[in-house]
Amino acid sequence: MTHTLFSPLDMHLHLRDEKMLETVAPLTAFSFAGALVMPNLVPPITTIEALLAYKSRILEATKDDTFEPLMTLFFRSDYTREFLEKASLHVTALKLYPSGITTNSEGGVASMDIEVLRPVFEVMSDLGLVLCVHGETNGFVMDREKEFASIYESFASAFPRLKIVMEHITTKESVALLDKYDNLYATITLHHLLITLDDVAGGMLKPHLFCKPIAKREEDKEALLHVSLNAHPKVMFGSDSAPHPISKKECCGCAAGVFTAPVALPALAQLFDKHHVLANLQAFVSDNAQKIYNYAPLKKEVILEKNPFLVPQSYSDVVPMFAGESLTWSIKDVL
Amino acid sequence: MTHTLFSPLDMHLHLRDEKMLETVAPLTAFSFAGALVMPNLVPPITTIEALLAYKSRILEATKDDTFEPLMTLFFRSDYTREFLEKASLHVTALKLYPSGITTNSEGGVASMDIEVLRPVFEVMSDLGLVLCVHGETNGFVMDREKEFASIYESFASAFPRLKIVMEHITTKESVALLDKYDNLYATITLHHLLITLDDVAGGMLKPHLFCKPIAKREEDKEALLHVSLNAHPKVMFGSDSAPHPISKKECCGCAAGVFTAPVALPALAQLFDKHHVLANLQAFVSDNAQKIYNYAPLKKEVILEKNPFLVPQSYSDVVPMFAGESLTWSIKDVL
Repeated sequence: MTHTLFSPLDMHLHLRDEKMLETVAPLTAFSFAGALVMPNLVPPITTIEALLAYKSRILEATKDDTFEPLMTLFFRSDYTREFLEKASLHVTALKLYPSGITTNSEGGVASMDIEVLRPVFEVMSDLGLVLCVHGETNGFVMDREKEFASIYESFASAFPRLKIVMEHITTKESVALLDKYDNLYATITLHHLLITLDDVAGGMLKPHLFCKPIAKREEDKEALLHVSLNAHPKVMFGSDSAPHPISKKECCGCAAGVFTAPVALPALAQLFDKHHVLANLQAFVSDNAQKIYNYAPLKKEVILEKNPFLVPQSYSDVVPMFAGESLTWSIKDVL
Repeated sequence: MTHTLFSPLDMHLHLRDEKMLETVAPLTAFSFAGALVMPNLVPPITTIEALLAYKSRILEATKDDTFEPLMTLFFRSDYTREFLEKASLHVTALKLYPSGITTNSEGGVASMDIEVLRPVFEVMSDLGLVLCVHGETNGFVMDREKEFASIYESFASAFPRLKIVMEHITTKESVALLDKYDNLYATITLHHLLITLDDVAGGMLKPHLFCKPIAKREEDKEALLHVSLNAHPKVMFGSDSAPHPISKKECCGCAAGVFTAPVALPALAQLFDKHHVLANLQAFVSDNAQKIYNYAPLKKEVILEKNPFLVPQSYSDVVPMFAGESLTWSIKDVL
């Protein structure tokens, strides 16, 4: 049994830089036609020069003309219209991080005050630049995304022409917002479709499943599954695949992030097949994103087959999700 | 500035066995006059012979005639009256674990059905044996203790003569039960007075703060602090100090348990001093337990002083809470 995906896209990806970039970029380029690359390097990507240089390094690392990195700028509230007009030629979206909320987000936005953000949001609306948001407050870890809902609402209603993507959503409250505001969209990760806090900390503690936002409750997972499996048109796959070397994961203080890039498509095929909705996977991993971002991806055919895939224990020094486990679907060929 | 504690007691302690026992037992014996020792060895302590042999090994490891281990039996619903009568000469309490709920609890009780537990609970009531309970369901990790509240209520109301200790409570719901049932008591750990889930998984993931029950919300911590700092007479200090070798904590699947034995009294002094209730510490760490257990401890004076204590990075291969940090109080002398 096989299933072909056309031009799969990962609309939320961390490729890091230098040695890590060389390790992980080819793994995504192998099975995806494109990916929205997050800008939270150290220092973050805030200039056109830095963005173009990073894009070159990514292309150099992937060496694959069937893969296109879609670049993002690290959101700053002091960007000028002139700068954004120039940047819009090279940039797919701006990524807004509340300051200090996740890995390398220290230079993010300190206040979610609409009046502070208005100038840049207006220009982005004019230029058709998408706003991607890491939507968490600095509250209690299980409440952070829920508490951010009112901020999403204030953005969406004050800037109706701005396309806003709620990144890596994890709660039923965020899912509910999709049908409330025309201009709110969402990415959903593989791991948040599969795990709850019980999997991270209910038995043994599992550093390799620790991520931000942290996995929530069963009812939240069910809400995410519902819109993903049913190909809700405002929902896109975004792995948030976030590699950390093993030394940063199995230690006294472990970094947040699940590395799913090399297992994402087989694992999604297994999940959608289990729910008898394999036909909906194309929308989730590509078609919805094409429409939302008004983007025509490079041509790529990924032929998946129902044949076991034994996931490696690690890729270089990065441990993937399902390390050492067997998935029921694998990648047979990429054309 | 000094403060003397008389015969401090740790009413919930894991000493393990063999090499680990030799490492950790002297650390508790140094500053405590007695400790209620948990029976969840592999296999668990379910016979008088095993219990007496374990007690001998503890005494051998501590070599301290100012420290008394108070022994517990691993609760089984098939113990006979005859067995319990004999056991009561050597045993301070029975510890009930729901099956599989924490480290080495696989042989615990599968059902909390009162009719199944009634025969043993009746005999324990007759003999004045205390029932210690690990009160968690197998539900969602943040709800497990809250969901157990109704089971505590069913035990307490059906067996009014049975003294029931809710072990290592972590929620405001458990605190509320103390004033609702005469025969419900509680132990509270050091770490649950200091941390919430935010400290475990809100920033980096901290395996050394991962424990069962998992740390909850700020409002829960506040409720625990309230009864502890105010010397609520039904609340006792029980460290739940649970040593694991570093290899079981900083790994792909990390064991639950915070090792606090060697830092407990200085850290408690710092906490109570900060809240200007140092005078209440004696009740929390000894007097309440003496009354609840009707127990006269060995004489021991622990003189604490407000002088920095730099906590070691590890004791043998066990990492304590506050490793490498400085506490404001230290142990000056033990008489």
